[in-house]
Order: sequence, then structure tokens, then C-alpha cells
Amino acid sequence: MKAAYKPNRNKGIEIREIPVPEISSNEILIKVKAGAVCGSDIHLYNWSDWCENVDAKNPMVIGHEFCGEVVAVGEQVSSIKKGDLIAAETHIPCGECRLCKTGKQHICQDMKIVGVHTDGAFAEYAKIPEVCAWKLPEGTPPEIGAVYEPFGIAVHGVLKDKIAGFSTVIIGAGPIGLFAANVASVSGASQVFVVDLSEYRLNLASKMGDNIVTLNPTQDDVVKIIKEKTGGFGADVVIELSGSVSGTKTGLEVLRKGGRVSLIGLHSQEVPLDLVNNVIYKEATIYGITGREMFDSWYLADSLIQSGKLNIRDILTHEFSLDETEKAILTAKGGKAGKVIIKI
Amino acid sequence: MKAAYKPNRNKGIEIREIPVPEISSNEILIKVKAGAVCGSDIHLYNWSDWCENVDAKNPMVIGHEFCGEVVAVGEQVSSIKKGDLIAAETHIPCGECRLCKTGKQHICQDMKIVGVHTDGAFAEYAKIPEVCAWKLPEGTPPEIGAVYEPFGIAVHGVLKDKIAGFSTVIIGAGPIGLFAANVASVSGASQVFVVDLSEYRLNLASKMGDNIVTLNPTQDDVVKIIKEKTGGFGADVVIELSGSVSGTKTGLEVLRKGGRVSLIGLHSQEVPLDLVNNVIYKEATIYGITGREMFDSWYLADSLIQSGKLNIRDILTHEFSLDETEKAILTAKGGKAGKVIIKI
Amino acid sequence: MKAAYKPNRNKGIEIREIPVPEISSNEILIKVKAGAVCGSDIHLYNWSDWCENVDAKNPMVIGHEFCGEVVAVGEQVSSIKKGDLIAAETHIPCGECRLCKTGKQHICQDMKIVGVHTDGAFAEYAKIPEVCAWKLPEGTPPEIGAVYEPFGIAVHGVLKDKIAGFSTVIIGAGPIGLFAANVASVSGASQVFVVDLSEYRLNLASKMGDNIVTLNPTQDDVVKIIKEKTGGFGADVVIELSGSVSGTKTGLEVLRKGGRVSLIGLHSQEVPLDLVNNVIYKEATIYGITGREMFDSWYLADSLIQSGKLNIRDILTHEFSLDETEKAILTAKGGKAGKVIIKI
Amino acid sequence: MKAAYKPNRNKGIEIREIPVPEISSNEILIKVKAGAVCGSDIHLYNWSDWCENVDAKNPMVIGHEFCGEVVAVGEQVSSIKKGDLIAAETHIPCGECRLCKTGKQHICQDMKIVGVHTDGAFAEYAKIPEVCAWKLPEGTPPEIGAVYEPFGIAVHGVLKDKIAGFSTVIIGAGPIGLFAANVASVSGASQVFVVDLSEYRLNLASKMGDNIVTLNPTQDDVVKIIKEKTGGFGADVVIELSGSVSGTKTGLEVLRKGGRVSLIGLHSQEVPLDLVNNVIYKEATIYGITGREMFDSWYLADSLIQSGKLNIRDILTHEFSLDETEKAILTAKGGKAGKVIIKI
Repeated sequence: MKAAYKPNRNKGIEIREIPVPEISSNEILIKVKAGAVCGSDIHLYNWSDWCENVDAKNPMVIGHEFCGEVVAVGEQVSSIKKGDLIAAETHIPCGECRLCKTGKQHICQDMKIVGVHTDGAFAEYAKIPEVCAWKLPEGTPPEIGAVYEPFGIAVHGVLKDKIAGFSTVIIGAGPIGLFAANVASVSGASQVFVVDLSEYRLNLASKMGDNIVTLNPTQDDVVKIIKEKTGGFGADVVIELSGSVSGTKTGLEVLRKGGRVSLIGLHSQEVPLDLVNNVIYKEATIYGITGREMFDSWYLADSLIQSGKLNIRDILTHEFSLDETEKAILTAKGGKAGKVIIKI
Repeated sequence: MKAAYKPNRNKGIEIREIPVPEISSNEILIKVKAGAVCGSDIHLYNWSDWCENVDAKNPMVIGHEFCGEVVAVGEQVSSIKKGDLIAAETHIPCGECRLCKTGKQHICQDMKIVGVHTDGAFAEYAKIPEVCAWKLPEGTPPEIGAVYEPFGIAVHGVLKDKIAGFSTVIIGAGPIGLFAANVASVSGASQVFVVDLSEYRLNLASKMGDNIVTLNPTQDDVVKIIKEKTGGFGADVVIELSGSVSGTKTGLEVLRKGGRVSLIGLHSQEVPLDLVNNVIYKEATIYGITGREMFDSWYLADSLIQSGKLNIRDILTHEFSLDETEKAILTAKGGKAGKVIIKI
Repeated sequence: MKAAYKPNRNKGIEIREIPVPEISSNEILIKVKAGAVCGSDIHLYNWSDWCENVDAKNPMVIGHEFCGEVVAVGEQVSSIKKGDLIAAETHIPCGECRLCKTGKQHICQDMKIVGVHTDGAFAEYAKIPEVCAWKLPEGTPPEIGAVYEPFGIAVHGVLKDKIAGFSTVIIGAGPIGLFAANVASVSGASQVFVVDLSEYRLNLASKMGDNIVTLNPTQDDVVKIIKEKTGGFGADVVIELSGSVSGTKTGLEVLRKGGRVSLIGLHSQEVPLDLVNNVIYKEATIYGITGREMFDSWYLADSLIQSGKLNIRDILTHEFSLDETEKAILTAKGGKAGKVIIKI
Repeated sequence: MKAAYKPNRNKGIEIREIPVPEISSNEILIKVKAGAVCGSDIHLYNWSDWCENVDAKNPMVIGHEFCGEVVAVGEQVSSIKKGDLIAAETHIPCGECRLCKTGKQHICQDMKIVGVHTDGAFAEYAKIPEVCAWKLPEGTPPEIGAVYEPFGIAVHGVLKDKIAGFSTVIIGAGPIGLFAANVASVSGASQVFVVDLSEYRLNLASKMGDNIVTLNPTQDDVVKIIKEKTGGFGADVVIELSGSVSGTKTGLEVLRKGGRVSLIGLHSQEVPLDLVNNVIYKEATIYGITGREMFDSWYLADSLIQSGKLNIRDILTHEFSLDETEKAILTAKGGKAGKVIIKI
């Protein structure tokens, strides 16, 4: 089969013919229909420090946001059958640790990640354990099925706590930030401020709901504007997706007393925070958010997508073929893109 | 001044000239601009058993849902001033009990209710303690200002816990049920089922959002339909507003395992419940809901109303003058009405 | 092997020789060390209506509260090995429904119960699926291991929400009520009121902590005393374990405004409740509680038991051999007992 | 009257005769019975940067942790009367902002602090607004009444979320850390690790419960030991009271995945945090904690103190007279002290 392959630790990937994966008794084989490019695919493409830090597999097939049709199942698999359309949860839980045994598989003590620690899915076929399969409604378009996974992160972060009637700030308007703006908007956020350095992305953000205010720190006094538009109090909810020191600091600064923050974006360094003024005296609640709750976030994501209230299709700005995977990754990396889809 | 007056315990009210209320040092005097008819006004009109049970004042001016302009303030009043447009919280807390001292004034141990235990507001002027005044945004239309109070109950019940992505059942499509359907819808409820016996009200309900399903128990198998449309699980959230035994039972029956219920509607009798199958084995969470959280519900209500996402104006079906108060009450009682407004 | 066997739907059980269970690939075989008698064992002994309602298996081996040593494991079992000492979670989840996939296996949509729908454990050997095995710390005394399961229910109900500093009422001083009193006490409940009709049980209850007040409705004015001792407010927390109409009503009546109730005891009929005064106007929160959260309740139960703070041994009042199972059941049924242990 | 007076911005205080405070209509005058020395009193003594940062009053009477007998009340005061024994909430809320109106007075948008922005209470008489008075049970010893305020901070931080059955780490064994260890212990924490550099304080900490483990970073590998004693997972709960960068980092490092942190200690600088590994990937929940919830923390504090379960008296290591206030402050500053009391 054809696959987007990372053959070594040098920059780049190649399209290569490799054998179709063989499944073990608890796994399923999927004919991939569409993938979507994630920031970690860019890391893998560049083989950045992050890859060494997370002990990424090498060589391997890259890609982990995807959906497809099940074409074979292991003999112990009972909940999934041939012909099912599925999206993949990319966190492979051990199933035995305390976290796994208390409904927290997504922060499993001994987790593996598809397309990072195991072969990925920018390929004609991919395999995952049964436990990671999410059955999609019949007729789900492949490009929508492929983004359930990143959409689920936005759902998890925004709906971690109450949102209706609350002013909400999204720091970072990459794909997950755009999803988050959309989720916040349809979930009753009274105002949604989206902060990013890219006008291209802010333009996409402005389509995510009726009460979106886009702010660009290069020209807007973000803190002042948000304070003004929230009656001097600051925002009720902050969703941090920039993974930048300045973005995170801005997020905490615009938060009102008693507000809540979801930290999702990954920083490449320690973040110096004014805990006294921005957390302690504010009695802020900060939630670390990673991946998707298994499978609460999936049920919510599915429910919202099926409700027809979202306009996430506007976020899917580019589409490439498997042969064009490198171009897809470079497009995502370039920043003038929402979510980049790979149709397979 | 002119007032809708309940002179004795007989059925009926009359429009009568009475003195303008005198305020004490912590009170404010309001020139009433609009009122709205509540179920308890109907009780007072009829002088039903409920009036004796709650130890309602008699004689008195009726009416408690209202807004108006402040025309005088007591010498201790500091947060409100002449010219402010205000809506009234009708629960008068004692300010000293444990509930009041822990942010739970709305369930004060020694509470009085405007228009029940004190003179009400279907009159040219009304007075309330400063603590019960909610400053409305400038330019708020009087009919909207008058329904903040009942709208706040819907907000309190629906937003008591998470709602986005959840299937929601509203039992009872009176005005608060209609508000609740609207709040649930703009807060991301995936489906909103509204159950009522009146086609008139169900027709209003159908305008409350995109994913509204109206059900009439006289012709629909409510339990079966909701189960079917929720994948066999039942609804995530139930908001009980009928105050009827059968409505409450239906609500608990359609609830899914792990779901949550807000009980708001007031029953005139004990309600026999199958606790084992509908609460215990389901691990249901049941919230008793009364009034509005002071003032969390008001901030949320205001935030949602100001967001422009709601269509509560559709719920305000009738408008009368103060002289027509009796007609207004009888219209509300007749059932072929949403919220009935009295413009003053 | 020897087993306590229910051969038919008549009253009674018998000790009978039957084959050792054969395990399938995901099951484990346990040499039982101790069992404990549950109320449902009494139902099975009597073959009450409850047995038909829950569609209990017949004939079968009874008993489900137990611990023992693993002597064989199926080929797919990975988390448990021969020689492990285990207690059994008696709720067998399907593993595939929405509840199971969101950390709510204990209220699985398609649940089976050990010793009710499958052969039980008052026998020399028993089998359970791997997913139901809880590894006990080495050296756990068998009689303690045997009561993790019912103790876990008390943990689940008492620790469902905050408890430290709260006045707590336990309605019903059967074994789970006694466990609950002990858990509440070591978890910082400021006062623990235990209500039961049996002086024998109230005497046991009085040993469950420093601030226990025992109340017998046949001689004490329960509502008045609890109100008095809580400054007129009523209790912060109520744990309902009587499964009786009067007990449940008393529980709701003594609850303070804003308090919370865990309903655990199973009623044999509908329960007529004054929802308006005892739930709605009080803004009570009612939690339906069944079984143990898998496996949060187990981790908490283990943690508390290992902390050495409890005195649950005082609750284990009687001990019998497997041959004496009938006597054990009749002792439990007689009411002059705490938890009745069967050593095997 | 005699008062501990800060006459200027130089180091030091003096005992001086000044007039008894005059009260306004909503204030009460208290004959002080005992005070307790807080870290901010040391700041005021030294006139550190902190004093300028918080815009502390100067000159003024210092001291804010205290209790005493009410000797006069303003004409608007209704809930407090002459002869009442009271402790003082030291946060003076504005009563009108959004935070005050939603039960969050303790993080009021426009808060003043007794003994920082207004004259304090190390004096024969002190005055506070009625809203800040907490009525003590008759017969409360003055040294206990004087520490309700700092004890309430520990209560707020420890009981912010569930604690029973959870392993808990207290970073910093100053007086509030010691209170926190005691509260955690009586609230069912399974293990309580107390970390401090001072053997004197760790010795006090060891008296705070049955399952206390004291750790001194100068000789113990804190992270390794806590990981080992929590089965490799890390601690469920961390209470940060050191206000030091290293203590805060240690706290986040020993936290288990899915754990929670209360940040209480105040840092004099920004704190660089590894958010990715210690907050995001762990899905930690971090609560900023300041002061006491008004008045939830007070009710809980009172309830726990009245329950007789605590041994906070062991924390009150020194007692001085008003004349010896400087010595009291220097003793507290010296570190070889628990809570230092000033009897007046």
C-alpha cells in the first residue's frame, strides 16, 4: 500500500509502498478515507526536539487524525465490524492503570499515541486497537470524520465547565482554536474574543459565530479591549491554545476574578506566571486539558456535529491527495490555512 | 395612584386608587413601566389554597414581575439612584441567616416575596428593598425588563449544570417552559423535546430553536419517541415545569442513566415516585430549583438577553393596560397565551 | 466443590456438591476465602418478588460479596495472575454501551450481577470476568476483603459530594448504614445522626465515631432533635439506606435548605414525596446511588481501609462456615447482626 | 487606648496611646481579647515592598487576626449586638460589585483589608463593618477565636474540593500549613505529607494527625518518597503554602495525573512552571485560593472547631501581651514558632 513515510530523523517525508499492516486479535484494520494534518505531523516532518522528547517512533508512517472504513477485525473484537465507518481516538490506553480504571484513559499512566509511538494513518490502510475506534454515523463525509479527533479537543477544553452566558477568550486561532470558537458560540458564550497574530486566521475566526470579536496583538490592545467589553471585569472563560508564553500570560491577565482557564496549547519552555495577581488573588481555576475524554468528549462532539449547529466546514480550508502529503504539511505549517485535509 | 388591588379573600381583583408607597431608608420607589402575569397572580386572583399555604398578605396590591424607573431612594441606598431602570428580584432575603451569608439568599431561611407578602407592582408605583434591584441596561424595552424575573428561573434551572451537546426535555410549555426551551437551544442542547397538552403552547415552543421536537401526550407516545430519538438511552437533561404528577413521572422515566433533572414546577400534592428504577438505578441527579440565584442567574440572564441570541419576544403574546389587569390574568389563566404583559 | 445452592424457586437453599466452574478466556477462577451476606441473598433465600423483578437466575449458586485467591486465569487475562488475592466487583458491565464507554460501567445499560444473573460465590470456587477483579493488598484478612464491595457502596454514597464539616444523617443502620456512619465520621462530618428502629443496630452505630447521635423513631422525635442540634437549619447531608417510605420522608424533612441526599436503600413501592417543600423550595440535590463507581469507589475504599482510621471490624458481628450458610442468612435476616461473614 | 502602632515607613512599630475608634452607622466597636500574628504583620513591621504593592495605609494600627467582645454598634447594625463575642473577617467587601452580588465577596473587585487599608486590631479596641463580624460560640477561648481567620484559609484551600481518601501534600508548614495538615487529616486524607525546611515546624506538623509524613528537602528526596508512597502515581491533592518557587514546582511535580492543587502561598516574583508536563499532560486542576469564602469557610471552620476533632491548640506555640507585640512579631518572623498569640 501507499503511505506517507518518515524513513529517518532527517527533515522530510516520502510517499512509499509498504505492506498493509497486520492486525492482532484486539485490533481493527481500516481503509483510510481521509486524514487531517496536526501540529505534531509538522514536528515529525521537521523531526524537531519534541519528537525526541516524546520518544517518537522512527521510521514510521505519520498521521493520526483520520477516518475510514473497517475492512478487517481481530478475533476478540466485538463492538466493531467490517463495513463500519470509524474515526480514531489516537490515545491508546493501557487499560490497566489506575487512570484507565477510573474513566481517565485519556491520561493513562502508560499511554501510546497513534502516529507517534505506532504507525500512523496517512496511508491507504491503518490499524488501531478496538478500544480506540469511534463509530461514525453512516454517511459522515470523510473530511468531517477526519477532524472528530481535533474537534474533540476543543469540545473537551470549552465544555470542561459551564460556558453558556459567559464571555470567552480563545488565545490562538489555529484549527483547534477555530473549533473552540465555534463550540463556545453554539454553546451560548455571550461574547467570543479570538486572539491571534494572523489576519488570515482571524478572518476564519470571524465566521465562527454571531458574537465573535477578533483581536490581533500587533495592532490591538487586547487586555484593554477585553476589559472594556466585559464591563471592566475581564473574561469569564479563557481557552489557551497558543502554547506561547505571551499568549498564556495575556490569557491569565484578561481573566476575571473567579474565572476559569483551559490550558491546551503546548509550550516549548517553562512559562513564568504572576501567580499571585493572576491566579491566587483572582481565585482562578486552571484546567490542564489534553486530548479527549474517552469517550465523553466524543459523545459531545458527535452530538454537536449531528445537531447541525456548527459551521466547522469553513475551517477545512485545504484538501490534498495522499501523494501530496508533503504539500499538505507545508501548507499547514505556513499558517495561511485552517485545517488541512488529506483525501485518500 | 392606580393599582390592581386584592381587597379581600373573595375571587377577583379591582383597579383602585391608593396612596403611593412610602419608602424606608433601604428601599427604592419605582415608577412601574411594565408588569408580567405569573401563575401566582392567578392564585391570588382566585385566592386558592396556595395563598393560605404561603400566608399571602391580604388585602394588597398584586403583581411581582415588573420593571420601571427609580424615582426615589432611601437615605441608606448607595448602589441605585434616581433615573435607573430596574427589574425586581422578588425574593426579599433577610440578609442575616446562614443561607443569606453563604450566597444563597434566594433560599433564605426567612424570605418574603414581593406581591405575596408585601404589596406588589401592578400599580403606577412600587417599592422594593435596594438589595432586590437589578439595574437594566439603558434602553431595555419595558416588556423585556418585566420578564427578567421569570426568565431568570428558566436560566437557573437549565444552566444549573452542563447543557451543551445534551438532549433536553422540557415538561410543560408555559412561559417558563418556553424560556427554558429557548435557553437550552442557544446553550447548545443537541435536541430539545417540549412536552405539553396544549397545541397552542407547543406551537410557540416550536419557535424556540432549530432542534425543537414538540410532543403532546394526548396523541404522542412521549416516552417511546424520546427513547427512540436518543438512541435508546433517554434524555440527558429534564426540566420539569408542569408541576403535575404525570409530567414529573414522565420526566423521570425519559431520563437516561446518569442524567439530571431540574424540578421547578410546583405540585399541589405529594408525588409518588418510582425511586428505585428512575432515580437510584439510574443514578439520576435531581436538583430542586426555586427562584433565581442572587445574582448569578441575573448576570447570566442579562448576558444571554444582551447577546441577541434569544427569541423570547415570541413568547410575549399579549399586552394589556393596567386597567385591563383582570383581563390579563384571565388570559394567562386561559392557557392560550405565552407571557402576558401589562404595560403601565 | 461445595456450594450454597438455590435449586428452585421455593424458600431455602442447600449445601450441594457441584462442579468447579470452568472459565472462559477473559475470566478468572477464585478459591473463595470469605463471603458476606447481603440483603439480596435474603431475597434469593426467600425467592421474593424482587427475584422475579430483577430476573434472577434459577437454579444457581448464591452469594456475591466475597474475596479469595486466584487459582486460574483465562488466556486473554493480563492484569490478574495466579496467586493474587482479589475482591469482586459484582456488577458485570457490557463494556460497549455509552455508559461503559464514559466511565460509568457501574450503571451499564446492559449489566449483569454476580450471584443474581450468574453463579455466585458462597462456594469453594467462583469465577468472574477479569474486569470485575480488584486486587487486594497482600495480607488483607479474608473477612475484610469480603466486605470491600458493600463498604464501597457506603463510600460511593457518602463521598459523592463534600462531607467534611457537614452534619450528616444516616437513615438505616444496617451494615451499609454502619459503614456509611464510619466513613462520614472519619471524613470530617461534624455530627453523624444515625436513625434506626433497632436498638441493637443503634448500639453498633454508636461505635462508629466520636460525634455519633443515635435516634430511634419509636421513642425519639427525630425531626425535632436533628433540627435542634443543627441550629434550626436541618442537616447538611442525608444518606438514605432504609429503603422505607417513612425513612425516606424523614430524610428529606430533616434536610436543610441547600443540602444533599444520597438515595441508596431500595424501596419495594413508589414513594410519595412532598417535592415542593422538601426538594424544590429547599433546592435540595438528590443523588441516586447504586453499587460502586468502577473503580473510583474501590480506590477510595481501599485508601480509607488502608489508612487505619476506620473501625469496620466492629460491624462484622458474626462468622459462619460455608456449611452454615443458611444460618448465616437467617442471622442477617433476624436483624440482630451487623455484617455476617461466611469463612470458606 | 493602647495600640501597636506603625508611625511611619521605617522598620518597627511602637506601643502608643491613641483615641478609641469612632464607629459609623454600619460598624461595630470591639474590645479586643486576643490577636494573632500574620505574615503580613511582619511585612508591615519591616515595611517591605509588599506594603507598597498593596498600598498599605501608613501610619496605622497593625493586626487583623483577632477576636473580642462587641461594646458598641452603629444605628444600622441589626445582626450583632453589644456583648457578642466575635471574630473578624478581614476582607471588607464593597457589597455592590458583581463578585459581591454573586456570593464572592472575598474576591470583591474593590476590597479593603483590615489592618492593611484600615486601622487594625492589635489594640485595646478595634472597629469593623457589621458585614465582617462572625459571631463566636459563647465561651470560645480568645486564642482560638483569634485564629478563626487564618484557620479559615486552610479550610478554604483544603476543602475546596474532595479530600477524603486522598493522599495530600502540604508544601510549607507555617501556621496555615499546620492548620491545613490538621484539616486534611480529620477530613479523611489517607496520607498527609508535610514539606518544610524547618525541623521545628515539621515537628509540630507531626502532631497534626495519624498519617502524617514529614519531609525536609534538605535531607529527603521529596519527589521520590511521595511517588513511592503513592504507588508511583503521585499525590491526589497538593496544598501550596510556601509561596516559594521551588516549593510550588515541587508541588506540581509530585501531583498525580488528574490531581488538584490549591495555591495559597504568595510569591514575591513570577514563577516559571513546566505547564506541559505538570499541568496539561497531567490534566491538573489548579485553584487559586485567597482568604475565606464569605461565609462558607467560616461555617465549615466553626463546625470543625466545634466538633472537637482538631488539635489546633498545639499550633499556638507562643503567647505575648499587647506591650510585647514587637517581640511577638519577631518570634513569628524567627520561624521557631507556630501561631503567635497576643493576649490583650
